[in-house]
Amino acid sequence: MKRIVLALGGNALGNNLEEQMIAVKSTAKVIADLIEEGNQLVITHGNGPQVGMINLAFEAASKTEAKTPMIPMSVCVAMSQGYIGNDLQNCLREELLNRGIDKTVATIVTQVLVDENDPAFKNPTKPIGSFYTEEEAAEMSKQGFDMMEDAGRGWRRVVASPRPVGVVESEAVRALLESGQVPIAVGGGGIPVRSTGGNGLEGASAVIDKDFASAKLAEILEADMLVILTAVEKVAIRFGTPEQEWLSELSIEEAERYVAEGHFAKGSMLPKVEAAVQFVRSGPGRRALITMLSKAGDGLSGKTGTVIHA
Amino acid sequence: MKRIVLALGGNALGNNLEEQMIAVKSTAKVIADLIEEGNQLVITHGNGPQVGMINLAFEAASKTEAKTPMIPMSVCVAMSQGYIGNDLQNCLREELLNRGIDKTVATIVTQVLVDENDPAFKNPTKPIGSFYTEEEAAEMSKQGFDMMEDAGRGWRRVVASPRPVGVVESEAVRALLESGQVPIAVGGGGIPVRSTGGNGLEGASAVIDKDFASAKLAEILEADMLVILTAVEKVAIRFGTPEQEWLSELSIEEAERYVAEGHFAKGSMLPKVEAAVQFVRSGPGRRALITMLSKAGDGLSGKTGTVIHA
Repeated sequence: MKRIVLALGGNALGNNLEEQMIAVKSTAKVIADLIEEGNQLVITHGNGPQVGMINLAFEAASKTEAKTPMIPMSVCVAMSQGYIGNDLQNCLREELLNRGIDKTVATIVTQVLVDENDPAFKNPTKPIGSFYTEEEAAEMSKQGFDMMEDAGRGWRRVVASPRPVGVVESEAVRALLESGQVPIAVGGGGIPVRSTGGNGLEGASAVIDKDFASAKLAEILEADMLVILTAVEKVAIRFGTPEQEWLSELSIEEAERYVAEGHFAKGSMLPKVEAAVQFVRSGPGRRALITMLSKAGDGLSGKTGTVIHA
Repeated sequence: MKRIVLALGGNALGNNLEEQMIAVKSTAKVIADLIEEGNQLVITHGNGPQVGMINLAFEAASKTEAKTPMIPMSVCVAMSQGYIGNDLQNCLREELLNRGIDKTVATIVTQVLVDENDPAFKNPTKPIGSFYTEEEAAEMSKQGFDMMEDAGRGWRRVVASPRPVGVVESEAVRALLESGQVPIAVGGGGIPVRSTGGNGLEGASAVIDKDFASAKLAEILEADMLVILTAVEKVAIRFGTPEQEWLSELSIEEAERYVAEGHFAKGSMLPKVEAAVQFVRSGPGRRALITMLSKAGDGLSGKTGTVIHA
C-alpha cells in the first residue's frame, strides 16, 4: 500500500459554484479509482477562484449599506477550506459508497506555518481581489495594503507567497490516515500563519502555493509519493516551441538544471517541478508524479505522466 | 477520564470579527482548564452571527457590479466552520502549549444529516439574512424562497430547523479523540444535508440547532457528558417572575414536565433542555450539564450549574 499525497489543480474544481458541483463529481471518480486500487490517499487542493470569490464578495459588500467588514486573507482561505472541503468530502463519500467502500472522508481545517523572515514578505507579488483605479490604489496603500499595477488592467492588492515551513495540524491528518480514513487538508495551500513569538500563531497576509504546501505535508507524513495533477499530461521542456519535448522521467538533478535554464513558467509548471524536487529530496525512495487528472491512474502505473525521482 | 462534548454558546465567540478574536482567547482558557483536569473533549459551537455575516456579504455583493453569486445556506455554514474553527483551534493550541500540553486541536468540516420528511421543512421558522420590503419579499417568494414577516421589522427569508439524525463525519471526530487530540466539530449545528436517495447527500435549506447536533454527536461518540454552555449559570423555572427558582439538578422526567408546562423559552433555554434530555436518555450513565462558560469547571466538579440525569 502506497501513501500518496494527491494535489488537485484548478481544473479538478472548476471556476464557480456550478462548475465546481460538476467538476468535483468527475474528480471523485478519479480519486475513488486510486483508493480502490489500495492506495492510502491524502487529498489537497487549490482555491484560486473560490478564495477570489469570497474576497470579492466581502470587498463588494463592505462598500454597500450592509457594511459587512473586510476580512483578512487568512480568513478567506479558512472559509474556502470549509466550502471546497465540504463538496469534495461529500462527493467522494458517495462515489466510494457506490463502490461498496465505507471510508469516512473528512476535511481538516489546516494552518500552514510560514517564516516571517521569508523574502517573499519584502516583495509581495501575488495579486488578489478586484481591480482599482490609481487613486483608489493610492488610498489603499495609505491603509497599509500592498498594491501593484497588473498588466495594464488596473491596480490590485498583492500579497506575499512565502514557502511553507510547517503544517500545524499534520498530526490530525495522520490520525485520520492511520484509522483508514481519507483526509482532505492544506486546502488552498493552507491558512497562512506566522509565529507571534512564544507559542502563538497569527494569520499572515499571504497566499501559500498549494503544491509547496502539499510537498511539505507529504514530507511530514513520510508519504511514498506526491502526485501533482494539472492540465497537461507530462512536463515539457522548450514548451510551446518546435523543439518541445515531453518528459517521462526526470532526476532531481535534471529537474534543477531545466529550472535554472528557465524551461518552466512561473506560477504554472515551475512551482510544480520545484515542489516535486523538494519532496523527492526530503527522504529516500520518495517519488513525485506530475500528470493530468484523468491520467492519474495510468500515471501511477507508470504508463504516462512525468516521474521525478532521486 | 471523562469523554465530554462541550457545546459553546454565542457568548463564547462574540458577534463580529473583533469580538471573536477577544472572546475566543477567554474561551480557550476555560477549555484548556478542562483538558488539564484530564477530560477528553470534543468542542462544538454555534455560528449565528458568523453565518449571518457570510450570508449578508454574499447577498449584498450579489447586488453590486461584482455580481458574485448568492450561495446556499449549506455553503454559508461550511464557510463559517472554516472561519470559526480556525480561530478556535489556533487559540486553544496556544493556550495548551502555554501550559506545556502538546495536543493537536483540529476542526473537522462536518455534515449533519436531517430527514427530508422532518415536519420542520413544511413550516420553516428560522429567520436568516437581511430584511426586505413586502414587494421584495413577494419577488423572492416567486423565486422559491420562504419568506416571513419578522416582528414588525420587515420581511426575512426563513429556513427550516430540522432535528439532526446523523453526523456524517463522526468517525473522523472519533479518530482524533482516540489519538489524544482535540476535535472541533458540528460547528453551527453542522452543514445540513439530506439524502438524495441511494448513497448521495445534498445540502438542505436549513439551519440545525447546535445543541441538538451536539447531543447527537455525544450520543454517537458514547460520551459520558454533554456540557451546554450558555449565558446563565443554571436553568430556572418560572424565569423572570418573582417565583423564579434556579435548579441544581433535574431528572429527565422533571425536565420533560417543565418543558410541557412551558417554563423554557423557545429558541433559547428550551432546545438546551430538550437536547440535554435527548442525550441523557440515549444511554445508561449519561449526564448533561447546563451552565455558563466561566463556570464550566465548577459545574463539572458539581459546585454549580444544572445537571440533567436519568
